[in-house]
Amino acid sequence: MRTILLNNQMIQAEDAHIHIEDRGFQFGDGIYEVIKVYNGSLFTIKEHIDRFYTCAEKLQIVIPYTKDLLHKMLYDLVEENELEVGHVYMQITRGVASRTHFFPSDVAPTFVAYTQQGDRPLQNLQRGVRTIFDEDIRWLRCDIKSLNLLGAVLSKQKAHEQGCYEAILHRDGVITEGSSSNIFGIKDGVLYTHPVNNYILNGITRHVLLQCCEEIGLPVVEEAMTCERALEMDELLLTSTTSEVTPIIEVDCHPIADGLPGEWTRRLQQAFELKVKTAVMM
Amino acid sequence: MRTILLNNQMIQAEDAHIHIEDRGFQFGDGIYEVIKVYNGSLFTIKEHIDRFYTCAEKLQIVIPYTKDLLHKMLYDLVEENELEVGHVYMQITRGVASRTHFFPSDVAPTFVAYTQQGDRPLQNLQRGVRTIFDEDIRWLRCDIKSLNLLGAVLSKQKAHEQGCYEAILHRDGVITEGSSSNIFGIKDGVLYTHPVNNYILNGITRHVLLQCCEEIGLPVVEEAMTCERALEMDELLLTSTTSEVTPIIEVDCHPIADGLPGEWTRRLQQAFELKVKTAVMM
Repeated sequence: MRTILLNNQMIQAEDAHIHIEDRGFQFGDGIYEVIKVYNGSLFTIKEHIDRFYTCAEKLQIVIPYTKDLLHKMLYDLVEENELEVGHVYMQITRGVASRTHFFPSDVAPTFVAYTQQGDRPLQNLQRGVRTIFDEDIRWLRCDIKSLNLLGAVLSKQKAHEQGCYEAILHRDGVITEGSSSNIFGIKDGVLYTHPVNNYILNGITRHVLLQCCEEIGLPVVEEAMTCERALEMDELLLTSTTSEVTPIIEVDCHPIADGLPGEWTRRLQQAFELKVKTAVMM
Repeated sequence: MRTILLNNQMIQAEDAHIHIEDRGFQFGDGIYEVIKVYNGSLFTIKEHIDRFYTCAEKLQIVIPYTKDLLHKMLYDLVEENELEVGHVYMQITRGVASRTHFFPSDVAPTFVAYTQQGDRPLQNLQRGVRTIFDEDIRWLRCDIKSLNLLGAVLSKQKAHEQGCYEAILHRDGVITEGSSSNIFGIKDGVLYTHPVNNYILNGITRHVLLQCCEEIGLPVVEEAMTCERALEMDELLLTSTTSEVTPIIEVDCHPIADGLPGEWTRRLQQAFELKVKTAVMM
């Protein structure tokens, strides 16, 4: 049985319960992170911990640990569960309080973290994935990695029902990001992606990808694409912690270019792979 | 100690725990209702139960009780807790499942309900409340009474920090509703309010208020107001289950008319009071 972290205690997963008046359960009043584990190492853990603190601050939730302590807690959790490949999920909520919309005073946050075993998505990385377009109905603070995920859930479900891996979200025809990923297009040797603002999550794998672009000499323009323009791209791809660098070969049944992963995407995957290998000493 | 309902079991509140992998806790994947209790009776319970089922259906969550059984369960809960005045809070989530954005299969929903004692807000009803304007940053399915409440939470907190009762939300200067209420303006003997669509919750107290308008001969126009126009109204008011029919006397420090509750609002309060008294036989 898995061991999980509830606040700063390691307990058995079956004992991992929270109170019904936790604001995570009643308001989605909290944030989360997913960190990929390769070879027992937490990839880009510093960046994930930094974002966790930044998002908590945006909601005025005070994380009761130093960054160093949290780093150690997560590594202890991975070791305790003998996790080699998979991910760590962690979330913090404002805590348990009698229900009022405004922030309660004197409340202690609820922190939860657990590991999930899971192989890398090798088939998707190799073959690419099919996607759909869907309207972006989410709130206007998508920069906060919050637990208010229903918009993303409904879009992902729509993709899932159509046998697709991801929904590419757009506001009035302008692409923001995927339901749980960032989206990129490559045209005539230039990579396009939505700039970092309140409409998208500032993805950590997105950031790693942009570093890879620099390394392989692919110019980047942080500019949103329309859906129309996305379909005309030479290559489309998505990134996320668990999806890594995944080629998109189809949107709404339209193949992208010849319907196969493109050359730039392959080079970006190789550059990403090298970064992972270097970081985790695989 | 309070007795609460967890699924269809009455248990003590201190034992009311849910699992950390409940989708309510990880995605806000669920809906809720608040029903006012006067004199031991659940006011407009039928309408609340109907909306609970309608919202569940919009999210493809299947409530595992008949409406009649749920009605009985809520009354049993009120009796068990000997509640005279206050409210019942109930919510249902998609249930506990290993975390994926799309809907898991074979998952049993988690239902929770409890009572909360609380007097009627007589002072607010009498004197009126102060409010602020705030940008409506919520998602585009505000017709679903979901647990994704962070947008509302942040706006309410902003109001709270300014010593105000409510935040009146607007999209690009057009008022939608309050952070936890519906908003109405009265000008030259006509009541204006946002039409029912995906930008607002179809409030049950809103519906009762519109019936009251008909009874007292106040014409209704379901048309959104701009913030500018709202400040020029003869009267402003808000409704919600717990706030009932509350006069708004100020927005962003601007008094509405002479800064006192208006005559139509008083007549609407009286008509509302009569409806409550008739329904619960006070």
